Amino acid sequence: MSDANVKQLREELDSINLELLSLLSKRASIVQEIADIKTKQGVTKFDPEREKEMLDRLVEHNEGPFENDAVRHLFKQIFKASLQLQKDDSKKHLLV
Amino acid sequence: MSDANVKQLREELDSINLELLSLLSKRASIVQEIADIKTKQGVTKFDPEREKEMLDRLVEHNEGPFENDAVRHLFKQIFKASLQLQKDDSKKHLLV
Repeated sequence: MSDANVKQLREELDSINLELLSLLSKRASIVQEIADIKTKQGVTKFDPEREKEMLDRLVEHNEGPFENDAVRHLFKQIFKASLQLQKDDSKKHLLV
Repeated sequence: MSDANVKQLREELDSINLELLSLLSKRASIVQEIADIKTKQGVTKFDPEREKEMLDRLVEHNEGPFENDAVRHLFKQIFKASLQLQKDDSKKHLLV
């Protein structure tokens, strides 16, 4: 009985993982679009105020089970990964 | 025109952030359910094989813009946060 439950829960996890990947990828593409516009405008791409605003909004909507600090930490990692993507892109531009 | 685009893209980001939070929270609750069953069964909660299997499946489905390594890194952080949640839970159990 329990093993069947674990199997079913794991299937749910697998499906959520793929939904997360899809959303994270979509998010990264939007960040790239914003970065492209900002590059054309000649303004800085990283905006700490905007990052703080996004984190505050997330914590405001947090209903658990993660503590607010864990939400902040996790999303900082997500933001960092998107930012890293911009740096990789710049490197590619420099190489061509 | 570009500023209006940035505004719209940022609104999309905000909405994706909240969707991510909701999925991450749902994911964490499922991990907690699995951990509860495993505790009752007296088996170890952390399963490196299962983690590897999930990461492999994610990389298999990765269509960018993240590199596979970035996907692995990001999801390891997500898995770690859920695992950390279990540790916090255990501590709470020890305290009551």
